[in-house]
Amino acid sequence: MLPKDWIMTLEFSALAERRVSTHQFEPTFTLSDAEIADLVGIAVRAPSAYNLQNWRFVAVRSPEAKRHLRGVAFGQAKVEEASTVVIVCGLAPDAGRLPERLAPAVAAGILSTRAAEAWQAAAASQYEEPQAARDEAIRSATLAGTFLMMAAEAKGLASCPMVGFDPLALRQTFDLRADEVPVLLLAIGMAAPGHLAQKARRPAGEVLSFL
Amino acid sequence: MLPKDWIMTLEFSALAERRVSTHQFEPTFTLSDAEIADLVGIAVRAPSAYNLQNWRFVAVRSPEAKRHLRGVAFGQAKVEEASTVVIVCGLAPDAGRLPERLAPAVAAGILSTRAAEAWQAAAASQYEEPQAARDEAIRSATLAGTFLMMAAEAKGLASCPMVGFDPLALRQTFDLRADEVPVLLLAIGMAAPGHLAQKARRPAGEVLSFL
Repeated sequence: MLPKDWIMTLEFSALAERRVSTHQFEPTFTLSDAEIADLVGIAVRAPSAYNLQNWRFVAVRSPEAKRHLRGVAFGQAKVEEASTVVIVCGLAPDAGRLPERLAPAVAAGILSTRAAEAWQAAAASQYEEPQAARDEAIRSATLAGTFLMMAAEAKGLASCPMVGFDPLALRQTFDLRADEVPVLLLAIGMAAPGHLAQKARRPAGEVLSFL
Repeated sequence: MLPKDWIMTLEFSALAERRVSTHQFEPTFTLSDAEIADLVGIAVRAPSAYNLQNWRFVAVRSPEAKRHLRGVAFGQAKVEEASTVVIVCGLAPDAGRLPERLAPAVAAGILSTRAAEAWQAAAASQYEEPQAARDEAIRSATLAGTFLMMAAEAKGLASCPMVGFDPLALRQTFDLRADEVPVLLLAIGMAAPGHLAQKARRPAGEVLSFL
């Protein structure tokens, strides 16, 4: 057996240290739909409250769709230069979908029927307020989007999480449903030459307190 | 040189596949403040819009503080059983702080002075609406919280991201500032025996479309 923890310690922090938000992509590099689906298959391993999995991914990769997306993303060139830009949407939690989402865990004995019912009642109450529902849509989609970004990084791909877009125009252009919030765009591809270093961060000591 | 990409591919997806939200922690296991700071040092490598780094971490690890936190987290036992529960706060973006945040990148030649100024103007405009500012607080803190969770996982620790808390009571109990949003609690420690498997996810094909 490999000394797993040691390798993983090295590798996740190495991924975190070397990842940069890439602004220039190699426009001729493409990812196949199967490769994109593999990355999304890792992203959906992210946790979500009550295992709601309240997310949806739209991989924009045809030239025409990328042109439309660029139009609602303030004309940023990387939208067309990246191999794909994934629109990561969060969904307002729908407690009514929980029985279906939790059925495999109940069948596998990971969760009792009683717990699944209690979760449904708790979720229905927790997300009654529209602001709480929106917060959860953003949180869940960001968790999955972060997994997607690190899955790409782990495969040696470059990425850039983007929040510079017009949410209303994007919603209309891509026919998002009323309960879907476009949370971030993740451009994925191969970095063009001239890759820059990661921007400095404030050290832990400046942002961490103990109680 | 190690075959880096191969190892990393294996390892991030392995981390994502094996991570579970742990509900039972070994109450006698402790983490030192230095160990917690190391994890937060990896978490702050997360990206944030404009490199705002609009987050703050409060590591709750004394018995008394954990008791108070449990009181505002619906009495959940894992708050007291985990070694620490980190309150991950997102901050409403303050474009006025950007020159200070970006100064190291400008000094290192990663970002031009002109670009830094343009970013400041863009950020001031983008977060003028309170809802946009709140969304960004949640997004940034979730990005950093996800890094913190995976950093813990990579070290062989167990964790549980939690959204089951009373945000107003937590704000008062822990003296959060008005511009801080408590986005998630991350319980970190050692899993107690009886560790369960990861709950099933919908496969990529059900949540991904291509354009």
